[in-house]
Amino acid sequence: MAPSKIKIALLQLDSFPTKQAAISNALTQIRSAAKAKGAKLVILPECWNSTYSADEFERSAEKIPGGETSVALANTAKELGIWLVGGTYPEVDAGKIHNTCAVFGPQGEFIGKYRKMHLFDMDIPGICTFSESSVLTPGKEFLTFSVEGLNVGIGICYDQRFPEFAAIHRQLGTDFLIFPSAFDTYTGPMHFELIARARALDNSMFVALCAPARDTSKDYVAYGYSTLCDPWGRVVCRAGEHPEMLVVDLDLTLLEDIKKKIPVLKQKRNDVYELVRKK
Amino acid sequence: MAPSKIKIALLQLDSFPTKQAAISNALTQIRSAAKAKGAKLVILPECWNSTYSADEFERSAEKIPGGETSVALANTAKELGIWLVGGTYPEVDAGKIHNTCAVFGPQGEFIGKYRKMHLFDMDIPGICTFSESSVLTPGKEFLTFSVEGLNVGIGICYDQRFPEFAAIHRQLGTDFLIFPSAFDTYTGPMHFELIARARALDNSMFVALCAPARDTSKDYVAYGYSTLCDPWGRVVCRAGEHPEMLVVDLDLTLLEDIKKKIPVLKQKRNDVYELVRKK
Repeated sequence: MAPSKIKIALLQLDSFPTKQAAISNALTQIRSAAKAKGAKLVILPECWNSTYSADEFERSAEKIPGGETSVALANTAKELGIWLVGGTYPEVDAGKIHNTCAVFGPQGEFIGKYRKMHLFDMDIPGICTFSESSVLTPGKEFLTFSVEGLNVGIGICYDQRFPEFAAIHRQLGTDFLIFPSAFDTYTGPMHFELIARARALDNSMFVALCAPARDTSKDYVAYGYSTLCDPWGRVVCRAGEHPEMLVVDLDLTLLEDIKKKIPVLKQKRNDVYELVRKK
Repeated sequence: MAPSKIKIALLQLDSFPTKQAAISNALTQIRSAAKAKGAKLVILPECWNSTYSADEFERSAEKIPGGETSVALANTAKELGIWLVGGTYPEVDAGKIHNTCAVFGPQGEFIGKYRKMHLFDMDIPGICTFSESSVLTPGKEFLTFSVEGLNVGIGICYDQRFPEFAAIHRQLGTDFLIFPSAFDTYTGPMHFELIARARALDNSMFVALCAPARDTSKDYVAYGYSTLCDPWGRVVCRAGEHPEMLVVDLDLTLLEDIKKKIPVLKQKRNDVYELVRKK
């Protein structure tokens, strides 16, 4: 049975000129979240240890698990006895590159990995054009795991634009859906919070978006504004543009609260439509 | 081919002590929207000609088409040469009561009707408890139609809480999804605009919520705040609590604009999941 609350941390990390510096900073922030703040589940952003560019994905990709970033995160999870959602960093496997989130448990064990399923191919001329599919290979497997009885699922950034993705997680039993996310500064103000709130409300689940801090010196400038929403679709807390650590107790009683009061999950018209997961 | 814009009106109607007075007021407002403002498509709210209560549904239900409200709306649509989305009023058919939206065309012709598919059964003790299913029978058919080349679909209020409903409309080709809606004053501030924006963005479509004005003398107090959202998930215009007429041009070029720039509709992972409509 899940506890009534669990303390989590979203780390909106700064960017650094080298992978080693990014890892070093991340470990410092993770230790602070766990030791000083008491977080049991710590979450990192998308692409926090490399520049967000097609070239850089290939240069910095590593094995997951086993690569240097994964080893550092596993050791730190074990040292602190925490659950660690490793944000994303580029993975290489059989010659293919993936945008991947690795998860580690409190004994440093590798819980699993999730490869971004919907690649970020968007074309807003003069504002934001990106084609992840030119270099990345998408995943097709879902990742869920239990943290002291709380069912957690992982998505990555652009995945959140697809309501089916969160709805499949609802079918899988996910009560807390975590998206390491690096939205751009054009669609971020319009859509970032909107999507998080909608996915949370529609699926009676907690939703976290964990973003890198904004760095205007980069070619791709991330939006920031890491956000946590509760199952009522309310924003529980939200960062600004700068590096920031959000530490908050998830009030897990809200999960049953909304399911009882607005029981949409039981009111689907499965005689009229059905969302089917293909194996 | 659809025009590049079309002028619509959302009528946030006041409540009246009798059905006859409500109809009389509605016809006056419809004429004003069409004649003075030039609206080609006029939209009425949910349950605008009767009190929103289980008892009243049975007392005031009528045949659709053929009942007095439908006849008055059909005649007025013909008189003005407009498309008229009749909001909802209770329908009786073969001894069953439905919450139904009837649509009339510019020759006064009956275009079709949509019966609310997801009934409003919610239980927030001391705040809002309602059980439409204790008196109403839900529908199971979708309604779509063309207004000068623009594909329009109809939902009713609680239907909007189900992302599958709007997504099926997307599959049916709906570019403008209209929900006559009477949210309550507790969930309205939390969810009304959020849901409208999310459905619009997720499905690259316009979404209109047309609500009755707030009347605090009623047992069930409607929220008001009729809202129109564009395919980018932005609020185009929104009413307040009082009776109000929103008249606005839909900029239909935005439909292709977002489909080209953020092509999520083409990026679904139908090898991983699929929303299926059952016949």
